[in-house]
Amino acid sequence: MPATDAPTPAADADATVAQVGERGALARIIPRLPRGDDTLVGPGDDAAVVRADGSFVVTTDTMLEGPDFRAAWSTWADLGAKAAATNLADVAAMGARPTALVVALAVPGSTPVAELEAFADALAAAVASLAPGCGVVGGDLTTSERTVIAVTAFGSLDGRSPVLRSGAQVGDRVVVAGDLGSAGEGVALLFAEAIVDGVESADEAQRLRIEHPRAVMAQLAPLPPVAMGPVLADAGATAMLDVSDALALDASRIASASGVRLALRAAPLRSFPAPLDRVLHGGEDHALLATLPASAALPDGVLEIGVVEAGDGVTLDGEPLEARGWDPFA
Amino acid sequence: MPATDAPTPAADADATVAQVGERGALARIIPRLPRGDDTLVGPGDDAAVVRADGSFVVTTDTMLEGPDFRAAWSTWADLGAKAAATNLADVAAMGARPTALVVALAVPGSTPVAELEAFADALAAAVASLAPGCGVVGGDLTTSERTVIAVTAFGSLDGRSPVLRSGAQVGDRVVVAGDLGSAGEGVALLFAEAIVDGVESADEAQRLRIEHPRAVMAQLAPLPPVAMGPVLADAGATAMLDVSDALALDASRIASASGVRLALRAAPLRSFPAPLDRVLHGGEDHALLATLPASAALPDGVLEIGVVEAGDGVTLDGEPLEARGWDPFA
Repeated sequence: MPATDAPTPAADADATVAQVGERGALARIIPRLPRGDDTLVGPGDDAAVVRADGSFVVTTDTMLEGPDFRAAWSTWADLGAKAAATNLADVAAMGARPTALVVALAVPGSTPVAELEAFADALAAAVASLAPGCGVVGGDLTTSERTVIAVTAFGSLDGRSPVLRSGAQVGDRVVVAGDLGSAGEGVALLFAEAIVDGVESADEAQRLRIEHPRAVMAQLAPLPPVAMGPVLADAGATAMLDVSDALALDASRIASASGVRLALRAAPLRSFPAPLDRVLHGGEDHALLATLPASAALPDGVLEIGVVEAGDGVTLDGEPLEARGWDPFA
Repeated sequence: MPATDAPTPAADADATVAQVGERGALARIIPRLPRGDDTLVGPGDDAAVVRADGSFVVTTDTMLEGPDFRAAWSTWADLGAKAAATNLADVAAMGARPTALVVALAVPGSTPVAELEAFADALAAAVASLAPGCGVVGGDLTTSERTVIAVTAFGSLDGRSPVLRSGAQVGDRVVVAGDLGSAGEGVALLFAEAIVDGVESADEAQRLRIEHPRAVMAQLAPLPPVAMGPVLADAGATAMLDVSDALALDASRIASASGVRLALRAAPLRSFPAPLDRVLHGGEDHALLATLPASAALPDGVLEIGVVEAGDGVTLDGEPLEARGWDPFA
């Protein structure tokens, strides 16, 4: 059936994406999204235009139904919150302030438009909470048997140098902002208790959400410390990254890129509510792991977990720590 | 199985993405991609950093196996070329010069890494040909049952104002850069002759490629006139867009956004090699449709196809033209 730009039929609470079409669905979604303080041209043209002073930071991440989330466990609101949060954390990990997002969605044609509105509302709420002033400047909506959510996020360094993984210096303190371990605990709970007869159970996931909110929500709708990215950069961070694959693995990446050893201590890591194994190897935390000069003041909300030494790899209380974490191909 | 950053096994020509893992595959792909003249921090950190003077242009587009391409018809090289070309055309349609791309790929684990290398090589070749100096600054690789290619592209206006859809003025000339109709002719040929017993046939697609190269390659690996975007902007374009859904439908979008009528003439449109119906309604052309002041000199390589009048909608030789084209939900 050929397309036209004819007006969309009156909104129907039960209407699906296939019924209202791409443009009809976008007409209901786009007004729910924040325009953003740095948006010069927003959605609706071939491209958007975003203010940038000298440079912009850019990162992209894809969430696929199956490898990255289960439709029975994650609500559309969870997906909107997580899609925003994970990308905003990557921008923050460079020491940047998020300025804009673009969101490419592929969903089954049977998806109710009301669910996409819930996705948009949660995405907007996550942006308002984690990165006020950041806008959603464009996107794409198409159909797919399984849902795909591809977000690209942008940030401004506001005159700072980007904080790379490669700048850690011997003598620096190793610090963390945000939670470690809960997201890994949450996904373990879901796999252990929300699969019934081999099928993901929405009811069991709902029960776990109520009984274990900290762990399950850290997995389904994380709240990374986005605002701490620029704070850590301004405090002098020499290296920083978003802990997405697990502390042990991501710490080894700073060690490798910087040509140093990260010597971690178990005692501060035990202050997180999750078991130590999850803190070290759980993954999907979206905390910020950074190294700070010994002379730098520790910003509020930052936990010191070790020191940078000469050598390589990562140790925990002096013993080598296996660089093990999350891999989408595992 | 947990992940580590252990070295990748020696490259094996037959190795699949699942065998070498995400990082192993990326290690083979990333060196094949252009760094770009405006790249300050390239792939490998949480985010890239791209030079931008005052603002940047951004657009995103997703290609899905099934709705957007058929694995039996498109080679991986075709997909790399098309993913670059379609996004570069959207940047050009704002009057901007492409500076960077990010590419998020989800592919079956059984995909040979050599095919992803072919994808990368074709993407790099398309960028070198259409937008020299543009870099691939980041990306994402994960697994999916069906292939998903999400590209986000960036551009610099180099001091120009962005050319929107809404600026066409009564008396302007309507012009086109690039081809119209061939891509629609190509997809029609593939659907008519490269489906055997209800299944897409790679052999028949290969035959069509040889017998009808203009139409089939315009569909599978288009070469939009990216460099003409800034040229048309500098010539004074008052409105511009990338003809992705078909001339008739996209012309109606300029008419609607600008509050004018686009009066097209059939005679110049008959100079395209495809039949007039494909030129008007075929879609996926990725030509640039623009309006230029009557006083402006017509840049080389631009075809005048009509005039902007008071009124609304689109006419062809004075008769109303149906705003019909391509819709992914059709």
